[in-house]
Amino acid sequence: MARRGHRPSQTPAGRPRFWGRHAVTAALANPERVVRKIWATREALGALSIPSTIPVVFADVADLARLVPSDAPHQGLVAEVDPLEDIWLGDLLQQGADDKRPLVILDGVTDPHNVGAILRSAAAFDALGIITPDRNAPPESGTIARAASGALELVPWIRVVNLARALEEIAEAGFWRVGLDGEATQSFAQAIGQQRVAIVLGAEGEGMRQNTAAHCDELARLPISPQIESLNVSNAAAIALYAAAVRG
Amino acid sequence: MARRGHRPSQTPAGRPRFWGRHAVTAALANPERVVRKIWATREALGALSIPSTIPVVFADVADLARLVPSDAPHQGLVAEVDPLEDIWLGDLLQQGADDKRPLVILDGVTDPHNVGAILRSAAAFDALGIITPDRNAPPESGTIARAASGALELVPWIRVVNLARALEEIAEAGFWRVGLDGEATQSFAQAIGQQRVAIVLGAEGEGMRQNTAAHCDELARLPISPQIESLNVSNAAAIALYAAAVRG
Repeated sequence: MARRGHRPSQTPAGRPRFWGRHAVTAALANPERVVRKIWATREALGALSIPSTIPVVFADVADLARLVPSDAPHQGLVAEVDPLEDIWLGDLLQQGADDKRPLVILDGVTDPHNVGAILRSAAAFDALGIITPDRNAPPESGTIARAASGALELVPWIRVVNLARALEEIAEAGFWRVGLDGEATQSFAQAIGQQRVAIVLGAEGEGMRQNTAAHCDELARLPISPQIESLNVSNAAAIALYAAAVRG
Repeated sequence: MARRGHRPSQTPAGRPRFWGRHAVTAALANPERVVRKIWATREALGALSIPSTIPVVFADVADLARLVPSDAPHQGLVAEVDPLEDIWLGDLLQQGADDKRPLVILDGVTDPHNVGAILRSAAAFDALGIITPDRNAPPESGTIARAASGALELVPWIRVVNLARALEEIAEAGFWRVGLDGEATQSFAQAIGQQRVAIVLGAEGEGMRQNTAAHCDELARLPISPQIESLNVSNAAAIALYAAAVRG
């Protein structure tokens, strides 16, 4: 049990804690996910089938609240899990070799709410996976799992040491790399044409790093009003995924 | 100054506190916004021009942190403001009578991050305004202003007592009311055709209320994979606004 006043979203061992019905049931349904322990109210547990190998602790709502960040809507369920095993970019590209699913590449998107929402949209538009640098991206966490609403278990997330090199590998695999950039003149819909697309997004404010932009085949913009500087990055990702899904 | 350990995002008088460069500079730039007081670091203040009528308190970063919710990225700037004056739906519809700008109607969307992001997308796609019930929608707050990234000052936000009656008024003004509903069979892009559109969105999970759905001309869905139940509501709004902007 966490100390009073201390509300970790990770255990001391660095294991993420997930909360809420969607995140926890998705984790249980994912054969690749090791669930170490579950805390639950009797009511929440009634709706779940949990393998007998996973220790379950009955808890009341106040106990659960102490296991997760304040105000986290745990819905009576908290799970301690292992982060998913790393996936290699080469394996992912191989796996998607015969289809047209898009990729999403995030350069410097660190807000876990945004990363979670992007995972959710990536699942919704059947993306092959998302790719981030292994530094400068958040670790798996309850906040991401919650925002992803189950999609953290569905969408492969590749962390790479060198994003520029990964972008080269992605081009060799036949993707057209389109970076979203508010300063670009071409629209995203024009830029993607009918090609298989890798959507590259940078952090809000700074945008993508120069070397990342240099590794895109084209830079393009979403058709937004000059009265606002940019869209929220997860909203931009959702629109780009939609635009790629409905073209032609 | 707030008491130690107490981190309000509103003052006792119910005045919102905004923080961060975008939200505060947008509030200062809005002639309709009454800014009561500003706390700022000397550095942050250097970049601003503040009317001499507004009291300014120099503060250090730690003082500012105590004025806003924990972890709020205040960037050296906090402002206490009055909520904007109410706008009447009839006035808004009148104001947009000669253009084709869309409306966004939110039924039960209570998360301030989502409402803020939707305001931001509404500004980006030049919506006429957003409409919520006056109950069951969050009040203006620093969290909304921050997520809106300035758009809270740009996009008229109408709060109505009776959403069903408002939807009737909206129809009379010539809008085609399309409700987003994951169970619908028709796609959103088909449903909107070339009509002037009012996009109606419900809360995640529950969706819109039955009486709200009954006041839509059509229900429609975004083309998402069955592997995920729904999109984040701000992402759905962004996609719908984009789809309306680029049709034809």
